[in-house]
Amino acid sequence: MKLYFSPLACSFATRVALYEAGAAATFVEVDPLTKQTEEGTDYLTVHPLGLVPALLIDDRRLLTENAAILQFVAEEFPRAELAPSDPWGKSLMLQWLLFIATELHKTVFVPLLEKIAGPEVKSYALAKAPLRLGCVERRLADREFLLDQFTVADAYLCAVLNWSAVTPIHLERWPSVHRYHTSLLRRPTFARAFGEERALYFRELERDAPGHP
Amino acid sequence: MKLYFSPLACSFATRVALYEAGAAATFVEVDPLTKQTEEGTDYLTVHPLGLVPALLIDDRRLLTENAAILQFVAEEFPRAELAPSDPWGKSLMLQWLLFIATELHKTVFVPLLEKIAGPEVKSYALAKAPLRLGCVERRLADREFLLDQFTVADAYLCAVLNWSAVTPIHLERWPSVHRYHTSLLRRPTFARAFGEERALYFRELERDAPGHP
Repeated sequence: MKLYFSPLACSFATRVALYEAGAAATFVEVDPLTKQTEEGTDYLTVHPLGLVPALLIDDRRLLTENAAILQFVAEEFPRAELAPSDPWGKSLMLQWLLFIATELHKTVFVPLLEKIAGPEVKSYALAKAPLRLGCVERRLADREFLLDQFTVADAYLCAVLNWSAVTPIHLERWPSVHRYHTSLLRRPTFARAFGEERALYFRELERDAPGHP
Repeated sequence: MKLYFSPLACSFATRVALYEAGAAATFVEVDPLTKQTEEGTDYLTVHPLGLVPALLIDDRRLLTENAAILQFVAEEFPRAELAPSDPWGKSLMLQWLLFIATELHKTVFVPLLEKIAGPEVKSYALAKAPLRLGCVERRLADREFLLDQFTVADAYLCAVLNWSAVTPIHLERWPSVHRYHTSLLRRPTFARAFGEERALYFRELERDAPGHP
């Protein structure tokens, strides 16, 4: 398997899931600015929107969309127990994956992170944050994970919460979310993935800086 | 089962899926402006963001997030064959459900439909439409449905494409998408659901018009 990723993008969650599963995978970096892969190929031929992650499973199978990939990894490596085993638990995990993807990732964070988004767009997105993070706060008030066990939904939520550091969203305002995020980043697979991708992220910033050859 | 819906919202897709499955369900209308249900209750006690659909399955189980509900319905009524039966087909269906939810529904259409979104926000969202609808166009160029059979992903995509009528997105620009949408609306379950919800939609507009008691 080959995972196309960009440092600290939502593909961080898939890297964590693969580490949790002990899965053999190669990781191919995609420059989010130029859309070139570290293999020297044009990533737009893999994903027409240039979005990471994409998981190349074998010669025939390419999967895109972070939440779909996360569920695939959980199902492919059942011994890692990265998803509930009962049908209702699976439905609830999918509900949370969708909530993170639609309400947090796309509604709140993408406009806050994108350079092409002007101040009115950023205000519109930021105004939507408190209600949505409030939902997560109430969910996490008395639990360690989103569901009754660690799942790939926690990996996705952590990836999204990581972005608050470069936005006006201060997680301290939601104490249970803040505690949860801090605690997840101490988990060995998360700490390893975060350390590796943070180093690559700073290299990416340097490479894409104006004036750099 | 009880489906909380608003006329022609994305909950339209779940209504279609329930009709396709021949499932017994009651439909409870939620006014998107006041968040009151037709039962006279406050919908914010069901869903803190006030978003439809929500599916009350029994006394213990409430599911939110359209794509999670659609997958639940497909699994609950396997004889209706609303999803592929093989694991890889299921992964691809989830990929498309996610693409529709994140790239079309939340990224493009919500800002175009919301009154609180100003002109800069609407321009930002509209600029994202061609690349995304182009992906769907290429996918549908030589096929009747998103996957090798009709699935709940088609119901979701149809619900989203319905909204183009009240936005500056002209589906004629993407001929395969336009043909697909027109063809789906002729399917009996879609035609029935669309007729019913259109009538309710006009009643809703009248009810919520300024000056109406």
